[in-house]
Amino acid sequence: MTVTAREPRQERSRQTRERLLAATVDMLATKGWSATTVSAVAEAAGVSRGAAQHHFPTREDLITAVLEAMFTEMTAEAGQTLDQLPAGPERIDAIVDRAVSIYTGVPFKAALQVWAAAASDEALRELILPLEAKLARAAHKLTVQGLDPSGVHGATAHRLAQITLDLARGLGLADTLSDDSARRAQVTQAWVTQLKLALPD
Amino acid sequence: MTVTAREPRQERSRQTRERLLAATVDMLATKGWSATTVSAVAEAAGVSRGAAQHHFPTREDLITAVLEAMFTEMTAEAGQTLDQLPAGPERIDAIVDRAVSIYTGVPFKAALQVWAAAASDEALRELILPLEAKLARAAHKLTVQGLDPSGVHGATAHRLAQITLDLARGLGLADTLSDDSARRAQVTQAWVTQLKLALPD
Repeated sequence: MTVTAREPRQERSRQTRERLLAATVDMLATKGWSATTVSAVAEAAGVSRGAAQHHFPTREDLITAVLEAMFTEMTAEAGQTLDQLPAGPERIDAIVDRAVSIYTGVPFKAALQVWAAAASDEALRELILPLEAKLARAAHKLTVQGLDPSGVHGATAHRLAQITLDLARGLGLADTLSDDSARRAQVTQAWVTQLKLALPD
Repeated sequence: MTVTAREPRQERSRQTRERLLAATVDMLATKGWSATTVSAVAEAAGVSRGAAQHHFPTREDLITAVLEAMFTEMTAEAGQTLDQLPAGPERIDAIVDRAVSIYTGVPFKAALQVWAAAASDEALRELILPLEAKLARAAHKLTVQGLDPSGVHGATAHRLAQITLDLARGLGLADTLSDDSARRAQVTQAWVTQLKLALPD
């Protein structure tokens, strides 16, 4: 009895936590750093303030949890993509699209808000740097394998993967204030052309 | 008499205004958006609060002025660089360094704070977008001319200039939370190598 009664409660609690985290990501991306408080997030998620504070007693707890969830998800997505890449030269199109999409989604826009706040907050910087480094490693590994699956291009592929990811980050930043998708598609296509010349099969 | 008495006063007033603007750029980059108020900037610049409010009655006035000053300076610097580019393939090194330095300096870090705030502030977004577009055009013109001074590479040079600037913006973002200069030098060098292959003299 105790077990069956506890399981739905735990499941509800887990769902509440996930709803709060999803609302935090959206709120960071659209309302910004200062507006994203535990009570504002609770209201947006349709969760009582008491329940929200049970999960996240302080704003720091909420921000820490959302950063870990966001970076874990972006890192996991990068890993999954490897199994889904097409064969032949089209894998270069696919991997560049993937890199760009990591940095143009809502989670990146939310992370950018935390990033800007961290410029003047050392504790937040200490929190974000290892998560960012882990994502960067996963994205780099994915991109190298996508660009050069057989490893024949060695150091060249590593360097071009780095350029791909820094370019993707720059394209993400250009998309934060206005819809940059048309220009981004051109730049991405031009970069794919360069990569195919530099990394012949 | 009136004229000679007024001129030093006007000159002092101009200097006070410039001190306030310089302090605002530094404070945005190091203390962030929320901390950058007229009174905090006045204190940092060693200017009385009254004098600061004479120049900038509201925070919006201060932010508008600093954005215009910052973007005007970055745009002017981009223009000046054209006359100073070396001849021969080294101009590619010089122009990539220049593009990267536009996006890794203190003004860019300050602009990033305003950018993050503008994600949830439509009035600020309306203010920043035309200034950003003007800088982007100047930086693009500079980069195309640096990459392809004789114009023989046409559309290819235009596309590679766009990649150069988006890459530079991504490198700038990677430098906001930690010193990324060693990695940045490698990525920049790898990109220069690509450009020299794609744009032979």
